[in-house]
Amino acid sequence: MKPQDIEKRSFEIITKELGARTFPVGIAEVVKRVIHTTADFDYAENLAFSPDVIEQAKAALCNGATIVTDTNMALSGISKPSLTKLGAKALCLMADPDIAREAKERGVTRAVVSMEHAARLDGPLIFAVGNAPTALIRLHELIGKDEVKPALVIGVPVGFVNVVEAKELFIGGKTPYIIARGRKGGSNVAAAIVNALLYQLIRREGF
Amino acid sequence: MKPQDIEKRSFEIITKELGARTFPVGIAEVVKRVIHTTADFDYAENLAFSPDVIEQAKAALCNGATIVTDTNMALSGISKPSLTKLGAKALCLMADPDIAREAKERGVTRAVVSMEHAARLDGPLIFAVGNAPTALIRLHELIGKDEVKPALVIGVPVGFVNVVEAKELFIGGKTPYIIARGRKGGSNVAAAIVNALLYQLIRREGF
Repeated sequence: MKPQDIEKRSFEIITKELGARTFPVGIAEVVKRVIHTTADFDYAENLAFSPDVIEQAKAALCNGATIVTDTNMALSGISKPSLTKLGAKALCLMADPDIAREAKERGVTRAVVSMEHAARLDGPLIFAVGNAPTALIRLHELIGKDEVKPALVIGVPVGFVNVVEAKELFIGGKTPYIIARGRKGGSNVAAAIVNALLYQLIRREGF
Repeated sequence: MKPQDIEKRSFEIITKELGARTFPVGIAEVVKRVIHTTADFDYAENLAFSPDVIEQAKAALCNGATIVTDTNMALSGISKPSLTKLGAKALCLMADPDIAREAKERGVTRAVVSMEHAARLDGPLIFAVGNAPTALIRLHELIGKDEVKPALVIGVPVGFVNVVEAKELFIGGKTPYIIARGRKGGSNVAAAIVNALLYQLIRREGF
């Protein structure tokens, strides 16, 4: 079986096992791709979407968005050929020595400093946070002070301390979001959500 | 809370929630780090270990092992400072243009060709497969033909097609293994298992 046939068959199995649990077009692709990445059907219940978020995210991606991740692992998992086709880009500032130095001096996490620096970038900004709840908390503060207006926040850090609360900050708020409620998530989930958005544009809408 | 305190507290929560489910020293660190990475307690049941695998893996890592991954995402997740301290290394051949060309010519996956090329490398070899069941299947064939003798196979691809069967090939076999039985796994899980082994050596045994 060729890789694309395996992916097709996998999505058929996921759709079948979801049974009566169906989702709107656009959201369905995100939910199924996250399940494809984790083999964990909990995500059918965990993922929360703000109204119209899929259309808003796709518009940002078609307008030269910059996707900011909080791990190099998430950055590695995002489809680079898809980004190039759309004229979008992705970056992660976590390994930047200046970020590390500033974080140490201020006694905050590198994720906090990364978000602050990324917030000053031009163009539509998509934040994909799969690891650090502190990144989400700082983003929420910056949004509250009108210092950044993200086109989308993908908030899917995984963990046991401060994670659930950090994610709940965005639920029902004005910033477009895709959030994995509860403890689960991860860099792989963040990348899968980005790819689910990219593939909708590239494969289905022919960009 | 500082990152190291958050990690400590997270492991305390995991240990508490595992309750009466305890594991031998060495294996416990692997199981808990995978749960830490996924927030998924299924891994307390899914992970299978060959006899003495932790000691064998640690010996390989202290003897200049090369860790071969089947995704750049897994490679990104492995602790580079820990590898450097031990004199071990990690690589992924998946993005190598020669690998892609050969795979296309032969009509096989890049993962298959990656494993074949990596099998010819010197020194103790640790294969960390978080994505491609075809990588595991080809590795199993190469082992059967005495073309490679891995120090460890971490077999944790995630997925719905051929994945369960590929992982079961190793259970009970002679090659040292850490396998996530069933559908679950991923690049993040592969990296977490490698890091759990590295941190035992660095943090607890003072390498």
